Amino acid sequence: MAQRIGRYTLRFPSHPAVLAGAAVVGTTEGEGPLRAEFDRVFPDDTLGESSFEKAESALQREAVTLALEKAGKRPRDADLIFAGDLLNQCIGSSFGLRDFGIPFVGVYGACSTMALALGLAGLAVDANAARLALAVTSSHFCSAERQFRQPLEYGGQRPPTAQRTATAAGASVLGAHEPDKPYLAAATFGRIVDLGVQDANNMGAAMAPAAARTVADFLHDAGAGPDSLDLVLTGDLGAVGTALFRTLLNKDYGIALSETRHADCGLLLYDRETQDVHAGGSGCGCSASVFNSHILRQLQCGALRRVLLVATGALLSQTSTLQGESIPCVAHAVLVCAPENGKE
Amino acid sequence: MAQRIGRYTLRFPSHPAVLAGAAVVGTTEGEGPLRAEFDRVFPDDTLGESSFEKAESALQREAVTLALEKAGKRPRDADLIFAGDLLNQCIGSSFGLRDFGIPFVGVYGACSTMALALGLAGLAVDANAARLALAVTSSHFCSAERQFRQPLEYGGQRPPTAQRTATAAGASVLGAHEPDKPYLAAATFGRIVDLGVQDANNMGAAMAPAAARTVADFLHDAGAGPDSLDLVLTGDLGAVGTALFRTLLNKDYGIALSETRHADCGLLLYDRETQDVHAGGSGCGCSASVFNSHILRQLQCGALRRVLLVATGALLSQTSTLQGESIPCVAHAVLVCAPENGKE
Repeated sequence: MAQRIGRYTLRFPSHPAVLAGAAVVGTTEGEGPLRAEFDRVFPDDTLGESSFEKAESALQREAVTLALEKAGKRPRDADLIFAGDLLNQCIGSSFGLRDFGIPFVGVYGACSTMALALGLAGLAVDANAARLALAVTSSHFCSAERQFRQPLEYGGQRPPTAQRTATAAGASVLGAHEPDKPYLAAATFGRIVDLGVQDANNMGAAMAPAAARTVADFLHDAGAGPDSLDLVLTGDLGAVGTALFRTLLNKDYGIALSETRHADCGLLLYDRETQDVHAGGSGCGCSASVFNSHILRQLQCGALRRVLLVATGALLSQTSTLQGESIPCVAHAVLVCAPENGKE
Repeated sequence: MAQRIGRYTLRFPSHPAVLAGAAVVGTTEGEGPLRAEFDRVFPDDTLGESSFEKAESALQREAVTLALEKAGKRPRDADLIFAGDLLNQCIGSSFGLRDFGIPFVGVYGACSTMALALGLAGLAVDANAARLALAVTSSHFCSAERQFRQPLEYGGQRPPTAQRTATAAGASVLGAHEPDKPYLAAATFGRIVDLGVQDANNMGAAMAPAAARTVADFLHDAGAGPDSLDLVLTGDLGAVGTALFRTLLNKDYGIALSETRHADCGLLLYDRETQDVHAGGSGCGCSASVFNSHILRQLQCGALRRVLLVATGALLSQTSTLQGESIPCVAHAVLVCAPENGKE
């Protein structure tokens, strides 16, 4: 039974365990600094499929298969799967997961989807609505470019503020508390924030205010400062959004988040010095793959003890941009903690 | 705290109340048999907006505003809103709801969205994750035609098996149990079913197997026959899907659902004799508007006592159809009951 603390935050008293996570990525991501952390790096971004959309579905299928394997579970053990992606009508999820036979809850939060799905899966396990619940999402550079910008063949140029949609998927398996597993302690579901940014090539700037608000909500509700967290891990603000996020947090909410306690999945996934990714990574698969590999491993071994994953989403579409609209954004946060039995 | 019964069904022991529902519709829907039941019929399908997408957002905004008003609540009283729609990246919801400041959980279930959102909102209230939770969805004939088929100006013809996307939105306000309000007793989240139907102009045929499976799951889990329900209310199977649904339920699951205990929102919304709607209504707004008007009223007065709303969704996109894919479908069900204090 969830416990409301403050206005916007839910605490999960049963401490649902993250039994396992899996992350699978494409070629470029596999050449980045986290290459050794992923469960699988595909040497060909088509994954042998006949379209990029089908490749994205395959990424999601692969992430779920591996996560279940690592947790020692079968698809039939899962009571619910929370899944979504960036493709129109979320076909990465529906086609990727159609053969598992797991009750399917489609969610949409753009690049905030991993935190949204984790928060809901945590709620479901905590509330006894699922003994085992999965959270999964994906993105694919090529399917996203075709859908949101231009087919790759056009060779379109992107400005320096643009980010690279990660070819990646991540899946987490949640179940009842286990003392030697990381656990979900709380979730803050975000409100929509729209400060009027209209540049779809600068999502970091559009999403930073939503991230700042959700982090401020969480800390206010928890009655704690940023030092209560080992890491605030934003989803994919990239280089531009990261700077803005820390500035806004300080200016608008009086919260001084030191650089050492903040990391952004969009900056962790690639090496911007040597990889041509402009302002960093983005896409649902960005935070999903970073969280379910590098971060979960650090939580498992106790190198990190309290991580607030704050995934951010830009809730626009091509149509809304063409119609001159600004970009409504949202950030969802989940607090994930190291195992109780771990070393301090 | 939810109680799992059987393999797929959740019972909500606290009986979350449906405090109010609101339904707003466009011109054609306002000329149909339910015209007197809606909270608002717009005489102009643009709602005075400059695009059909903005009109759809306005529908959703209006439905939420009216539902909150009818429940005697303000937006700030709501802890969560579960919302989604058919537009790419669900912009009907994100733009329609961005000004309410309610923590926003985007969901995607195509035309199954109303039942999906209701089930999650019920779970949230039952689990104490929200004191007040909203469920809302919308669709718009003109935005859907442009996105999924052709702009209206092309004057495209549709085959008799096609359905008309409803211009409509519906919103429900859920809160803690109240003995004189209808309540959510249970939910069954569906599994994806894909029998290989590829005709995007015959969604009823594609979705019927998903509806049959979810109804069979629910009845099996509840250990009851169809006579335990006053009404099985499918979302939008239309004329073709309705016939198939009852046949499949009988043939595949041995469940004889009499015609008097079954209704389909897609057939209730329009008068197919006098209105040019082919096989009936569809779209997220179809079941949302029928449930939140006609059906909720009958539950409120006790004319119906136990209604299983089974909204069905076709989880395809234009891209998946162009790539020769079949149509994965899902059906989510919620059991809504008449007030405890009502007359038998």
